[in-house]
Amino acid sequence: MASQNLLLLPGDGIGPEIMPEVKKVIAWFNKNGGMSFETDEGLVGGSAYDAHGQSISEEDMAKAMAADAVIFGAVGGPKWDDVPYEVRPEAGLLRLRKDMQLFANLRPAICYPALADASSLKKDIIEGLDILIVRELTGGVYFGEPKEIRDLGNGQKRGIDTQVYDTYEIERIAGVAFELARTRGNKVTSMEKRNVMKSGVLWNEVVTQTHKNAYQDVQLEHMLADAGGMQLVRWPKQFDVIVTDNLFGDMLSDVAAMLTGSLGMLPSASLGAPDAVTGKRKALYEPVHGSAPDIAGTGAANPIAMIASFAMALRYSFEEVAAADKLDKAIANALDKGLRTKDIAAKGEATISTAEMGDAIVAEL
Amino acid sequence: MASQNLLLLPGDGIGPEIMPEVKKVIAWFNKNGGMSFETDEGLVGGSAYDAHGQSISEEDMAKAMAADAVIFGAVGGPKWDDVPYEVRPEAGLLRLRKDMQLFANLRPAICYPALADASSLKKDIIEGLDILIVRELTGGVYFGEPKEIRDLGNGQKRGIDTQVYDTYEIERIAGVAFELARTRGNKVTSMEKRNVMKSGVLWNEVVTQTHKNAYQDVQLEHMLADAGGMQLVRWPKQFDVIVTDNLFGDMLSDVAAMLTGSLGMLPSASLGAPDAVTGKRKALYEPVHGSAPDIAGTGAANPIAMIASFAMALRYSFEEVAAADKLDKAIANALDKGLRTKDIAAKGEATISTAEMGDAIVAEL
Ligand SMILES: CC(C)[C@H](C(=O)O)[C@@H](O)C(=O)O
Ligand SMILES: CC(C)[C@H](C(=O)O)[C@@H](O)C(=O)O
Repeated sequence: MASQNLLLLPGDGIGPEIMPEVKKVIAWFNKNGGMSFETDEGLVGGSAYDAHGQSISEEDMAKAMAADAVIFGAVGGPKWDDVPYEVRPEAGLLRLRKDMQLFANLRPAICYPALADASSLKKDIIEGLDILIVRELTGGVYFGEPKEIRDLGNGQKRGIDTQVYDTYEIERIAGVAFELARTRGNKVTSMEKRNVMKSGVLWNEVVTQTHKNAYQDVQLEHMLADAGGMQLVRWPKQFDVIVTDNLFGDMLSDVAAMLTGSLGMLPSASLGAPDAVTGKRKALYEPVHGSAPDIAGTGAANPIAMIASFAMALRYSFEEVAAADKLDKAIANALDKGLRTKDIAAKGEATISTAEMGDAIVAEL
Repeated sequence: MASQNLLLLPGDGIGPEIMPEVKKVIAWFNKNGGMSFETDEGLVGGSAYDAHGQSISEEDMAKAMAADAVIFGAVGGPKWDDVPYEVRPEAGLLRLRKDMQLFANLRPAICYPALADASSLKKDIIEGLDILIVRELTGGVYFGEPKEIRDLGNGQKRGIDTQVYDTYEIERIAGVAFELARTRGNKVTSMEKRNVMKSGVLWNEVVTQTHKNAYQDVQLEHMLADAGGMQLVRWPKQFDVIVTDNLFGDMLSDVAAMLTGSLGMLPSASLGAPDAVTGKRKALYEPVHGSAPDIAGTGAANPIAMIASFAMALRYSFEEVAAADKLDKAIANALDKGLRTKDIAAKGEATISTAEMGDAIVAEL
């Protein structure tokens, strides 16, 4: 395989602690897997702000745009609670998503068998759970204008955000969801609030039309987003692929992640459209969990979501499906052996450190 | 007590089946509780649309504005999926909320001890759960303008909704949350997405300021709404009162309701500001559950949420706290005796009908 450029952006909190574990995995594939990844590293979030007053530098943005894939840790923490809105840690992540046009965010919610007891849900509700949330990532209320705070005088201010969706944005994310459903359970549930939101009405209409035009072999179901949140808690196994907008996707994927009891385990992929000439997609891979400032520096962080995010990179950016499967299997094996970081250990169970978990997964490879 | 006017709006689906059970309860309090409620009835939602092409008539709106309290069933159903947006069933409910200025929506999520096994969550996670979600109900993305679908030509449309919050709107809902917290666990968790939304930045700022000005005795905590959804699933008992905006409140209260395993049991109150002269608040009481068109007409509907909503009316509109407690106790007693409608019955358990449950609760009174 030709040499591939990865940009590693560890970010804040536990980000810089879990990234080294991915590096071990990359090194293993370079040495034993016939691959040739070249890695570069940059700053994002609070650590970028501390270094040069921006949540990501122009230089690192340029590297991200040029990379074959970006491997992202996590951003944010109380240290930066009072920095100006424009340069807050999250702004770096949002800029990456927007400028790289990563409109499709894939968030699998999988219940690892070894961890079925770790959920707050009853075992029969979540055992074997395997759903995929496809979240629109470059539109909606995250980026719509106006987005501002106006001073109205008399001590009154007005906070405004704008939810905007165009037909083509809904069409392309629906297409991704239908395509992925074909490789899985062949069912898509589209979620919006068409009973309250005009963007929801359009969302519903366009998804229905996209289905009719090209994906009639896939089962399509519509659900109001609030009912969807309920149903995720009630009986999540009814779902296969869920497609929804940026804000609902944020909420619903977090609920879904927590269902599995495996928050520290869940990866995500954010993908752009295939380039018209090369067919390559811009892509960023990141764990679903955050920067966990409360445990940063203690060696307790679980590197699995980060490593599983690299498995998604192998799958979606490099078409190394066998290698991705192998890495996912190595993770499952380490878990089956009873190896646990603190977040996934049952009461009284022995725990290992971030680095030990990384080493164990490499050993399983 | 002086005579009080109740407007009953049964609505659609199971609404007209559960409303008669509340009437039994009202009759009981008139006869044995020294009260004198007068009831009138109107149409809302699909049934209003069928009758006169509007989701609520001007006449019924006027009655609602004049009533001491509105008792509302549920609206919507597949029958009206294709009616124009402006007259869809939900529009009737939204107009009631907006015109009556019912800005404060109180949604208790309580786990009835008799039903702790009915939840999809583990018993120790939800046993004894008693949280109160205070949802802003007349602002945000539900009512902000522009709210429209624009035709952009070339087969492209743009769906737009606008999230708007002014300082005073946040202040008054925060005030309600803090006041209620003082009567309970003395803790408020405010949820928004300040890391993405400007309205969230303002929300956070105003809640913090309101706390500083007048409620420093109450514990205040801020949480991002997505993390809040997660935490509700992980360990809901960490919360006492949650205060959040209209859309997040919609999502989070549905998730919270489902946690309890008691969706058919949960009431809500929607309150306006106290009148400057009389001190009276406009108010509407409705179950958290929907119109359940799938079971409408089968006599299987659970009337408890509807009856418990009337208990909230006794508490918040009529200051009949002892009567409210008595009614809540009658509900708990009926459950303790093992009486179950279908939705809350364990496998193999005997079930009773809507009317039988209503009768049983009246008998407990
Ligand atoms: C960090 C934050 C901006 C982000 C989001 O809201 O999208 C996060 O919650 C996520 O889900 O990736
Ligand atoms: C019926 C619908 C308009 C309503 C809402 O979205 O507010 C409902 O979901 C609710 O929570 O009361």
